[in-house]
Amino acid sequence: MSEFYAGKRVLVTGGVGFIGSNLALRLVELGAEVVLVDSMLPAYGATLRNVEPVRDRVRINFSDVRDRHSMGYLVRNQDLIFSLAGQVSHVDSMTDPMTDLEINCSSQLSLLECCRSGNPGVTVVFASTRQLYGRPRYLPVDEDHPQEPVDVNGINKLAAEMYYTLYHRVHGMKTVSLRLTNTYGPRMDLRSNSKGFAGIFVRRALEGAKIHVYGTGQQKRDFNYVDDVVEALLLAGSTKAVLGKVFNLGHPNPHSLLEFVETLRGLIDFEYETVPFPAEAKAIDIGDYYGAYDRFREATGWEPAVDLAEGLERTLAYYRRSGAPAS
Amino acid sequence: MSEFYAGKRVLVTGGVGFIGSNLALRLVELGAEVVLVDSMLPAYGATLRNVEPVRDRVRINFSDVRDRHSMGYLVRNQDLIFSLAGQVSHVDSMTDPMTDLEINCSSQLSLLECCRSGNPGVTVVFASTRQLYGRPRYLPVDEDHPQEPVDVNGINKLAAEMYYTLYHRVHGMKTVSLRLTNTYGPRMDLRSNSKGFAGIFVRRALEGAKIHVYGTGQQKRDFNYVDDVVEALLLAGSTKAVLGKVFNLGHPNPHSLLEFVETLRGLIDFEYETVPFPAEAKAIDIGDYYGAYDRFREATGWEPAVDLAEGLERTLAYYRRSGAPAS
Repeated sequence: MSEFYAGKRVLVTGGVGFIGSNLALRLVELGAEVVLVDSMLPAYGATLRNVEPVRDRVRINFSDVRDRHSMGYLVRNQDLIFSLAGQVSHVDSMTDPMTDLEINCSSQLSLLECCRSGNPGVTVVFASTRQLYGRPRYLPVDEDHPQEPVDVNGINKLAAEMYYTLYHRVHGMKTVSLRLTNTYGPRMDLRSNSKGFAGIFVRRALEGAKIHVYGTGQQKRDFNYVDDVVEALLLAGSTKAVLGKVFNLGHPNPHSLLEFVETLRGLIDFEYETVPFPAEAKAIDIGDYYGAYDRFREATGWEPAVDLAEGLERTLAYYRRSGAPAS
Repeated sequence: MSEFYAGKRVLVTGGVGFIGSNLALRLVELGAEVVLVDSMLPAYGATLRNVEPVRDRVRINFSDVRDRHSMGYLVRNQDLIFSLAGQVSHVDSMTDPMTDLEINCSSQLSLLECCRSGNPGVTVVFASTRQLYGRPRYLPVDEDHPQEPVDVNGINKLAAEMYYTLYHRVHGMKTVSLRLTNTYGPRMDLRSNSKGFAGIFVRRALEGAKIHVYGTGQQKRDFNYVDDVVEALLLAGSTKAVLGKVFNLGHPNPHSLLEFVETLRGLIDFEYETVPFPAEAKAIDIGDYYGAYDRFREATGWEPAVDLAEGLERTLAYYRRSGAPAS
């Protein structure tokens, strides 16, 4: 794979955000010519500190994926596009659904249209989400599980993913979607209170503040360390056999939220307690979730290399070194 | 049901179009206070001739469902909304996908948001489509059939339907979706060449022109006469047990396209031949489709009353009387 990306022209939307910036660092390492697109929306977690190590080796273009004109220009002459820009808060998608629709749904169709007219041969890797399954009917959830999203975010991401698959089938475009699950690691947004518990827990642990676990804490999740997700994205972009398809990511060892907290407590001192779900979170809660990623492993050889304890240790080390952002 | 609608304030989006205008006529008959919203987009089939019989008994408001501000005002103080405005051409959704998204997806979420803030107690009946199933895996297709749309139109209608269901579940709004299948009858758009074969065939028959049937003509469909669909919409709007759910419509006697043509030939003289599918139609063709509507029958007692021969006879009579629009 290292040879594949050397000299490739690669566009990353959401390139200054959590996963995008980690991907950018790796792409530079692999010798790609990297353009990062980011709108730097204040609430979305992008900070230039994320890409500090490669600032002089990437081109950063401040633009919004909702802007069809700049995107139409930017997609030209690229070999690959990683479509990572997204509104990721489930709760925010319920309070401000139109923004979620614009970013997660309309902009994706618009990006595909830009490519269809301006660069139909480009490979596009779309960061989808396990949120589109809704409450699991069985575990682990495989790609054939019914799609019954429980929030606006899940509906919009599902529609977007369907566009990507459709544009492969009807227009012959080189698209692939990965359904990401809980991703954590260096450069994750610690400031937001609406983007999932991992960032909140790490921030509060670093602050020495008490952590509140919603519900019983027994709900299970599969946690992917961001380096493993970056590896998956790179494999998706360089493997012909995956085109036109959708794949789960996942981890062989799912953990409950309490196990997550206890693992974190093995590394840093803090207190925690379980509290009842707030109504707005309860209404869209999905219960236990972990996914089967056999198909992606079989297609690409991908396997998560980092377990939760190691991943959290690296995450804490990053923020201790770089300084945790103010909440 | 006749008592239910007497004095009710009812808004119909797409109210001057094919199904909307037929619904409007019936609502007036039932004593409802009717507001019709229509953008009169030239290609979409609305013509004031459709509502001529009730022009002085309805309020017609020219507006576009994409206009959040006028819609926000219009939904207030309504008892029921029939959300029928839509872009219905499958082929057009592939050539101009962003317009399809705006009308069929964004505008539906926006309408729900208008209701959530301005009229949360209103009942909203959404006209969904069997197109969201894609190519049937089994027949008849029931509501649990996988949703694998084969065109942008199917994806956008699926997302919209999911918003309606979600707003019931999370926000307690009174929504229901009916998945319409091939609907035909008086006031259908005969001018368009991209909205399905029924209108094209009827127009060409009236003109004495040769009819071209794509493929073998053996592909099956279930045909609903528009009066039966209007009855279904009215039942959906007046039955508490259907709220929050989605239902197929359908017909007990599916017919092949050739049977449709032969039935039409029993009523009017014309020639026809089978021709190969054009590429753009073939790419999104779904093969045979007919749906199971047991759930809606059980919930409401609905049963199609008009068979194909009678429905086509009434349709021809309407256009002979009113004059077929120029193609």
